[in-house]
Amino acid sequence: MKLIGGEGSRSVSKGLAVVDLILRLVAFVGALGSAIAMGTTNQTYLVVSQYYVRFRAEFDDLPSFTFFVVANGIVAAYLLLVALPIAIVHIIKKRETKKTRIILIALDTAMLTLLTAGAAAATAMVYLAHKGNPRTNWLAICPQFNSFCERISGSLIGSYVAMLMLIIIVILSAISISHHL
Amino acid sequence: MKLIGGEGSRSVSKGLAVVDLILRLVAFVGALGSAIAMGTTNQTYLVVSQYYVRFRAEFDDLPSFTFFVVANGIVAAYLLLVALPIAIVHIIKKRETKKTRIILIALDTAMLTLLTAGAAAATAMVYLAHKGNPRTNWLAICPQFNSFCERISGSLIGSYVAMLMLIIIVILSAISISHHL
Repeated sequence: MKLIGGEGSRSVSKGLAVVDLILRLVAFVGALGSAIAMGTTNQTYLVVSQYYVRFRAEFDDLPSFTFFVVANGIVAAYLLLVALPIAIVHIIKKRETKKTRIILIALDTAMLTLLTAGAAAATAMVYLAHKGNPRTNWLAICPQFNSFCERISGSLIGSYVAMLMLIIIVILSAISISHHL
Repeated sequence: MKLIGGEGSRSVSKGLAVVDLILRLVAFVGALGSAIAMGTTNQTYLVVSQYYVRFRAEFDDLPSFTFFVVANGIVAAYLLLVALPIAIVHIIKKRETKKTRIILIALDTAMLTLLTAGAAAATAMVYLAHKGNPRTNWLAICPQFNSFCERISGSLIGSYVAMLMLIIIVILSAISISHHL
């Protein structure tokens, strides 16, 4: 077991640290993009009948979408302010990073859970907005608010990309820790 | 660094392995309980007017609740058939468990994500069933289906307990791996 901690293991670790940084950058862009895309979504819909009636749809009409924006914002802020700086330190300092790696796994797992909860709640609402539900008499709102619906559906993508990145990051971190002592 | 791998580290690892097994048992009971509680929920509601009209609410009226049952079922099956046997092996074989621990972290993270997605989607729907949403004209259904709503709300608890256990398990596994080589 002398090889572990040697030159080969060190270059594997450095490679993993660089991949980790890239995945975190992608996750950051995804989460930030989702938060901005959802947070700026609104649509005004004008009905011209006897009276002019303006219907306005905004993302914060539904609490799940507000939660989605907050969750993505928190994860983006965490990645930018905590995880990315630490990931850069891991590339520079090749050794004695075991403690910070374990702390990062704990934080990453918590952030992954937060992000997943936001994405799943928003997805459930997007699905309902598209399809409606006849049994509970909840009608689809997408036929009226078409561009609103397209926008909220699209803004889910960044969040799912960030989720996938965080899953891979947690697994890579576990592999990385096993190379360090 | 000679101490690592010695008697002290070994007893710490064994302690962590036992805690891991207990947390997995709690997570299994939580996920299974949630799946069964949600999966058996239905309520018939009789309106006596000019005609007898029977309204029936079942959990699978809403796709999010079906997803919740499937997600909790898969996680419970994974814990029973894969994770619990491996956790027992980890207690018996104190060494050379690094590879299986990394595989378990990967699977645990995936299962945590699945469970969180199910719980969040179902929670979004339970919230809507309780409060309704005036902006989208989706009315609360809980005033009519009172016991149905209490039951679906309660069945979320087990899932959240299992989520919390899995988060702790992932963090403990990372600590455990750092003690093994």
